[in-house]
Amino acid sequence: MTDASKKSAALARPLTGIVVPMITPLINNDTLDNEGLERLIEHILKADVKALFILGTTGEGPSLSYSLRHQVIERTCRQVAERVPVLVGITDTSFTESINVARKAADLGAQGLVLAHPCYFPAAQCEIVDYVTDMAPKLPLDVFLYNMPSHTKLTFSPETVRKAAQIKGVVGLKDSSANMFYLHKVQVELRDRPDFTLLVGPEELLAETVLTGGHGGVNGGANMKPQLYVDLYNAAKARDFTKIQSLHDQVMDISSKIYSVGAHSSYLRGLKCALSCMGICSDALAQPFRPFGPEERKIIAKNVEQLGLKQ
Amino acid sequence: MTDASKKSAALARPLTGIVVPMITPLINNDTLDNEGLERLIEHILKADVKALFILGTTGEGPSLSYSLRHQVIERTCRQVAERVPVLVGITDTSFTESINVARKAADLGAQGLVLAHPCYFPAAQCEIVDYVTDMAPKLPLDVFLYNMPSHTKLTFSPETVRKAAQIKGVVGLKDSSANMFYLHKVQVELRDRPDFTLLVGPEELLAETVLTGGHGGVNGGANMKPQLYVDLYNAAKARDFTKIQSLHDQVMDISSKIYSVGAHSSYLRGLKCALSCMGICSDALAQPFRPFGPEERKIIAKNVEQLGLKQ
Amino acid sequence: MTDASKKSAALARPLTGIVVPMITPLINNDTLDNEGLERLIEHILKADVKALFILGTTGEGPSLSYSLRHQVIERTCRQVAERVPVLVGITDTSFTESINVARKAADLGAQGLVLAHPCYFPAAQCEIVDYVTDMAPKLPLDVFLYNMPSHTKLTFSPETVRKAAQIKGVVGLKDSSANMFYLHKVQVELRDRPDFTLLVGPEELLAETVLTGGHGGVNGGANMKPQLYVDLYNAAKARDFTKIQSLHDQVMDISSKIYSVGAHSSYLRGLKCALSCMGICSDALAQPFRPFGPEERKIIAKNVEQLGLKQ
Amino acid sequence: MTDASKKSAALARPLTGIVVPMITPLINNDTLDNEGLERLIEHILKADVKALFILGTTGEGPSLSYSLRHQVIERTCRQVAERVPVLVGITDTSFTESINVARKAADLGAQGLVLAHPCYFPAAQCEIVDYVTDMAPKLPLDVFLYNMPSHTKLTFSPETVRKAAQIKGVVGLKDSSANMFYLHKVQVELRDRPDFTLLVGPEELLAETVLTGGHGGVNGGANMKPQLYVDLYNAAKARDFTKIQSLHDQVMDISSKIYSVGAHSSYLRGLKCALSCMGICSDALAQPFRPFGPEERKIIAKNVEQLGLKQ
Repeated sequence: MTDASKKSAALARPLTGIVVPMITPLINNDTLDNEGLERLIEHILKADVKALFILGTTGEGPSLSYSLRHQVIERTCRQVAERVPVLVGITDTSFTESINVARKAADLGAQGLVLAHPCYFPAAQCEIVDYVTDMAPKLPLDVFLYNMPSHTKLTFSPETVRKAAQIKGVVGLKDSSANMFYLHKVQVELRDRPDFTLLVGPEELLAETVLTGGHGGVNGGANMKPQLYVDLYNAAKARDFTKIQSLHDQVMDISSKIYSVGAHSSYLRGLKCALSCMGICSDALAQPFRPFGPEERKIIAKNVEQLGLKQ
Repeated sequence: MTDASKKSAALARPLTGIVVPMITPLINNDTLDNEGLERLIEHILKADVKALFILGTTGEGPSLSYSLRHQVIERTCRQVAERVPVLVGITDTSFTESINVARKAADLGAQGLVLAHPCYFPAAQCEIVDYVTDMAPKLPLDVFLYNMPSHTKLTFSPETVRKAAQIKGVVGLKDSSANMFYLHKVQVELRDRPDFTLLVGPEELLAETVLTGGHGGVNGGANMKPQLYVDLYNAAKARDFTKIQSLHDQVMDISSKIYSVGAHSSYLRGLKCALSCMGICSDALAQPFRPFGPEERKIIAKNVEQLGLKQ
Repeated sequence: MTDASKKSAALARPLTGIVVPMITPLINNDTLDNEGLERLIEHILKADVKALFILGTTGEGPSLSYSLRHQVIERTCRQVAERVPVLVGITDTSFTESINVARKAADLGAQGLVLAHPCYFPAAQCEIVDYVTDMAPKLPLDVFLYNMPSHTKLTFSPETVRKAAQIKGVVGLKDSSANMFYLHKVQVELRDRPDFTLLVGPEELLAETVLTGGHGGVNGGANMKPQLYVDLYNAAKARDFTKIQSLHDQVMDISSKIYSVGAHSSYLRGLKCALSCMGICSDALAQPFRPFGPEERKIIAKNVEQLGLKQ
Repeated sequence: MTDASKKSAALARPLTGIVVPMITPLINNDTLDNEGLERLIEHILKADVKALFILGTTGEGPSLSYSLRHQVIERTCRQVAERVPVLVGITDTSFTESINVARKAADLGAQGLVLAHPCYFPAAQCEIVDYVTDMAPKLPLDVFLYNMPSHTKLTFSPETVRKAAQIKGVVGLKDSSANMFYLHKVQVELRDRPDFTLLVGPEELLAETVLTGGHGGVNGGANMKPQLYVDLYNAAKARDFTKIQSLHDQVMDISSKIYSVGAHSSYLRGLKCALSCMGICSDALAQPFRPFGPEERKIIAKNVEQLGLKQ
């Protein structure tokens, strides 16, 4: 490994550009698709993405056994080999298990952590501030907050983000609320903190996030077509509206043709099915999800073709 | 241990009467209050309760590290010594970790399991049915479903309960929805299954649950005053309305004077604070919760006195 | 009209027994089915019900034009001829229009009013208390509060009910939350007010409402089979559990066979379709609802037969 | 009135720029502040706004009596004198009353209508499509759909918007969901309909709405400082990012200093209080709201000063 590659694995402050919330290729609920994982990483790293985020929502992190989570971290870090930073999701119902995964992540060579609210128990904002205050000093790596109200049913209020941003080791926020009003309120709270990273989850909001001062996107579609999201990020940075419009349209097409098929759990099932149709990895999902049946797969296969995802 | 005591640890079909969702006495986030646990178990078992349910919501199960959960199971089973069945909460974000806890529970001498939805990922009803169908054969003990929409944001629909009830090893439902209409719809679906246990969570609904055909209650207040809930169950079984009214009034008084103090997370903080004021165990809570401060503690102490909880 | 009949139209304190939330028979969105209305009222009044409640949720009150609401009040009061009290729903987005309907109701001979939260604007509990405090003195008749969170997205908190109960002219609460825990908290707040009426909306909870101290039910099914609900009320009052079980089972059968057909808006469409199959009135609904199509109507017709609703 | 002024009152297709959701100046719940209304309209029309929208959410439309709504329409149309189009909110619980207000609006000289879901009854998407399909032909003026999930608890799904856009007379959508992902999905559905107006409600999203292809904003803050929103719209159209950033910051400052004061109902109370501090009109609100007390008013007065709203 060269010094140059090592440098690229350090976490920039702020972290700008495209972070890829990597899916976890599985053979079944408890078995990693190792070859699929290698192919997927190499596929993604062809583009100039700025980090991999593993074991997040798109990575089905909370659904995997700890033994499998360790494997995912170990294999990913080895394969990435510090070409980009690896961020590891440590969201858990248990404070202590979050720290356990964090330590494993540091041992295995990851560069950062991502922490949503403790799911299960509803907590008040003051309890959330205390939670982060207590956890950060115990974490061996820098940590991003992960605002994911659709799954945790809680929100880091803008004021809570401001307080948490003052804690050593808390370096950014990944917001998956799809609520730009929320993001702007957070930006107001953090006007004096240009080093604090603000990333937005839904790829459908990438253009405006960058246009209005956000640092980048955490975009699931980059598992399939990483260059598209890098290009859109760059176009938005350059304020090239002709390109923005055309690339944003492609992002919306992926959204409607890959993530909206089937009656339920369409995003994850569609994304994994597409990657399977592209020959990258298996479409197996961890419990409680199941792959699409033949009917939906046929639709996805046709749309993959039509969207030019298969190359 | 006599044969008689052994017999009482077998799970009745249906299980009737009062099940105690035991709090977990803690010294801090990762340390069990062993003496408190022993005192608490002996305090509870003075009354004719029908089972202990550990590591549920009241037991803060999902907040504890696995190592601590194993200790809770081990210590509880040892102390109870089969005087009543011990039920163990195995709710988790991960299918495999639920099974891991279940196996530990069986090894350590527990008699049954309790399973809520996988929290974190929203799942469709068909996915929930599959989840239970896949898990039940892997569980070493009988399992109760645990309907807890306020925490999991999902519900076992009445039709899903009917389907799940046909799976070998699924023996009952604990409903904490506080929605009796829901319970009655479940009862309609299970008219031909008098062996399938239906228990209701909020103690404020114990009387009517039993009066309208439910099998019993899973009542947090029984940590403090187990005899009260046993008496109310018996009065409801006997349809002694004079007693029912007076005992239900006491239950409501505990509800308003112990569970409604403080601005947030009042149930768990109030319950543990009361047990601490009663000299039974520490009031420490697992993350993300904190014990009441001196002001709220003063109110609880006064109310404990007034309610005659301290004896 | 005899003195006796006049007496029965006065509002008892508390009002006990079965109140019928009458559907509004329509020919189309703006036209009353006058003959249907007459038949329906006579059908209902064969049983010993204690009041008619018109222009509530079941009566589609908020969907009707004011001119049509006036007709419903006028025709109903004339037909009922003080055999029972007529309660009129005055829920509105506008404070002043609620009062306008209330005055019309008094002029046309109604005996009481029913008021939910002002729908549309979310209001804080203190604003709700002020709202009722300001409105009550302007109302010409006694008023029941109407807790209907599924439609107004607001709740009268138990404390708000206690405060409102101190206002002159506020005589009771109709709770349609399906949450018996809520009802018990309200009962605690009103322990010293045996005159304040507590009625519960979902008929599936009639038995336990009466068994645990509620005063009666506001039961939509009584449009079809009023005697069933009167009998269940009486059985619950008499604590005759053999009768309660059998009658409650019939109520649940109506619930699952009439109110659960079709993909959406099943309660109102099912209820009106059943009344149409019974030959009582048209199945037309006000906007935004439409009657069942032939497929669902066939199912309802069969179920009406099977449930013995057609006599 | 000149021809030129008449022309400006015709509704452009699409309607672009800033539409002002005018507050309704009140003396009390049932009395219009006529002088305040005149001052407010003249204050607003100093800037190049493209329409006034009266009786919307900001205008407290659903809270006002019909008689008062008629006065607001009449006075506004007279004062505006076709200098800009006047759009009238016709949202109602009753289909027929919506049409009644619409007819009055046309008679009194308004140019367009705005229709949210029928509040109160939850309706399915197919019912909403039918609702609009049935209503549009009965309306004397073009109508905008009004997506307002926080108040109606319903959403026009992107597919529903596409269907509704095919109905004659339905000319646009005002989206107040604060969800740009939703807006982009609507844009995908309407790619072939550049004439269909897409406006966004929260002013905090004005910049990105225009940058990503929306036609303009419906911005409450324009009651106070119309030129700011016109300038931001123009800067976004011109893609002048230096100006955008500075103007967007001012918009966010108004948001945090005027709309976030007090414990509840902060937007409307803050906005009217600020207008009162600016000497434009009274701060009276319709039921169920009340003006701020002296403490909050002091904060608003200071913030009005600091934000340079008083000139």
